[in-house]
Amino acid sequence: MDGTTNKQSVGAVTPRSARFDEPLRLKSGVTLGGYELACETYGTLNADKSNAVLVCHALNASHHVAGYYADDPKNVGWWDNMIGPGKPLDTNRFYVIGVNNLGGCFGSTGPHSINPATGRPWGADFPVVTVEDWVTTQARLADQLGIQRFAAVMGGSLGAMQALAWTIQYPERIGHALVIACAPNLSAQNIAFNEVARQAIITDPDFHGGHYYEHNTRPTRGLRVARMVGHITYLSDDEMASKFGRQLRHGRLNYTFDAEFEIESYLRHQGNKFSDYFDANTYLRITKVLDYFDPAAEHGGNLSLALEPATASFLVVSFTTDWRFSPERSREIVKALLDNRRDVTYAEIDAPHGHDAFLLDDARYHRLVAAYFDRISKDLGA
Amino acid sequence: MDGTTNKQSVGAVTPRSARFDEPLRLKSGVTLGGYELACETYGTLNADKSNAVLVCHALNASHHVAGYYADDPKNVGWWDNMIGPGKPLDTNRFYVIGVNNLGGCFGSTGPHSINPATGRPWGADFPVVTVEDWVTTQARLADQLGIQRFAAVMGGSLGAMQALAWTIQYPERIGHALVIACAPNLSAQNIAFNEVARQAIITDPDFHGGHYYEHNTRPTRGLRVARMVGHITYLSDDEMASKFGRQLRHGRLNYTFDAEFEIESYLRHQGNKFSDYFDANTYLRITKVLDYFDPAAEHGGNLSLALEPATASFLVVSFTTDWRFSPERSREIVKALLDNRRDVTYAEIDAPHGHDAFLLDDARYHRLVAAYFDRISKDLGA
Repeated sequence: MDGTTNKQSVGAVTPRSARFDEPLRLKSGVTLGGYELACETYGTLNADKSNAVLVCHALNASHHVAGYYADDPKNVGWWDNMIGPGKPLDTNRFYVIGVNNLGGCFGSTGPHSINPATGRPWGADFPVVTVEDWVTTQARLADQLGIQRFAAVMGGSLGAMQALAWTIQYPERIGHALVIACAPNLSAQNIAFNEVARQAIITDPDFHGGHYYEHNTRPTRGLRVARMVGHITYLSDDEMASKFGRQLRHGRLNYTFDAEFEIESYLRHQGNKFSDYFDANTYLRITKVLDYFDPAAEHGGNLSLALEPATASFLVVSFTTDWRFSPERSREIVKALLDNRRDVTYAEIDAPHGHDAFLLDDARYHRLVAAYFDRISKDLGA
Repeated sequence: MDGTTNKQSVGAVTPRSARFDEPLRLKSGVTLGGYELACETYGTLNADKSNAVLVCHALNASHHVAGYYADDPKNVGWWDNMIGPGKPLDTNRFYVIGVNNLGGCFGSTGPHSINPATGRPWGADFPVVTVEDWVTTQARLADQLGIQRFAAVMGGSLGAMQALAWTIQYPERIGHALVIACAPNLSAQNIAFNEVARQAIITDPDFHGGHYYEHNTRPTRGLRVARMVGHITYLSDDEMASKFGRQLRHGRLNYTFDAEFEIESYLRHQGNKFSDYFDANTYLRITKVLDYFDPAAEHGGNLSLALEPATASFLVVSFTTDWRFSPERSREIVKALLDNRRDVTYAEIDAPHGHDAFLLDDARYHRLVAAYFDRISKDLGA
């Protein structure tokens, strides 16, 4: 492939909605009567339905993984650099599925949806979900699509936690797991940052205990602060230093509380942008999904025991400057897999971008993923 | 001293207020007509007034550095483990001065004070101050006390920045600088965390553009979030892991937005406590003081040039797990001092506690500071 790659977009794509009427008992104990999941697919499912790859999204993304919308061509999928004809996850060979997770705010059933019991938006009453719940809903989506087994489940960050959970919950239904920029659970510091974000939202007077839809308002101030603090953890210190450093907006200090340094202006912009399109109740729940994920917990903290059921092959990737989920955390996963004599490839990519590196078009990283999918392709006899 | 130290408290102390009527032109260009500084002193000034040590405070501390108040014995000074008879900074030998910096909220003139021009609290109209302004006011306090030259100026974090600025602004008035857990300026990431804190406060509806005193309210919600995010940066990841880990408050997950993990409960407690006693306008200004500090800026970013005027001897101390101001940042200071062939002792203390280590009673760290003050004592012929 080297030197002759011809990367293309999957082109204009159309999301669709999948309806599920069978009640879903969540890990919290709450049962959800029915729900919808927004999803997109790219490429063609082969005759024996063996070439399907599920791509799981992280905190703020969606089912719109690749391509663009005909009526909104600037709205490009969040992992478009990874997925498409000739790209590392090549849609000429694989059938790729993106799904907006339950509780999301991009078309799937979530806090903004109408609660059938009240005829009003769920708001604060929408249940807290977990990675395991998401995996269950994704398996049901696979059932609807007639896919018995995924060639691979893939994700970065929280998306990677879903891939990991797949290998435990449905070992027979997943051939390969691509676990990128992941951690086997959140550290106290990770939880602490999530809690700051949640408190910013919950204490915003416009939050109204989570029932803000009915007040025709949104906790925009809280959501802005939440995103700002989150954003800091996605970038490396070095990346911030080289991108912004102590660069001033107006060439000199003005001794006011307006944005004086470029980094302030950048963070405010990120906060504003995010609070315009993301739903606060979804954000709250997704941070809880992260906090709760801990497959080892039910095994006395022993991750090796937790991963015993897994039969998939694994690609585990970390990034040197990721301080949110550092390479050390990925190595915990690798060690647990090796304890179980599982087939695992591990790569630590030397990249300056911090946690967000998993979303970026880094040549070594993308070559690695491409090579791994080549191998999957060969396994399938494609 | 080893093995026979007899550490004591300085005992009951009484703060006092120093009044300054000479106008002060601030770095921002604003002139302040007059002001008061709250201060405390411990020990006895010797006959030639050569044994005075100024202790500068960091973000949320005050002039109450050591001892306790007779009517409030639990209110112990913030660096009481460091300062007192037989302690590293030994008040049997040194005359120690603590001062609440201008703009503070513990008795010195600040945003909560009455603006003589309006008869109402300054609020948002209180000027933005800088480390250099603080050093100027501290020099005036020394003048009032008849102290021509400090045996040492000492501080941790933002306090260390003041010690460093002293060596540049008043090289002839400082014998030794103890620069602990410092950085020569804030990184983009440091500024980013400060900006999150500021936005949390400023966007709190109870902030009222900084004039909340007149509305009989306080931006408590914003201040809580600001403190929570700050607090995360004071502790090391490891320290949080060993202190809290993923420990649950109630032994099991409850799938609610109440504090489920101990770290959440701890952070909320820290936020609540802080927002009860600290003034938001002061907090805003002190984060700006941090952002602005950058002695190299006026020398084209060359810290060695900036430190050229310094003639003091230096003790520079950093802590291995401090990720707010990492040892690397202290080494920048050491390098700049060595470029100028200054007398500098540097120690990197292996401590698990992160940035807050400078406040803790770590045996190696305290022995080091004690030994350094022994040397100062000998220099003084005391």
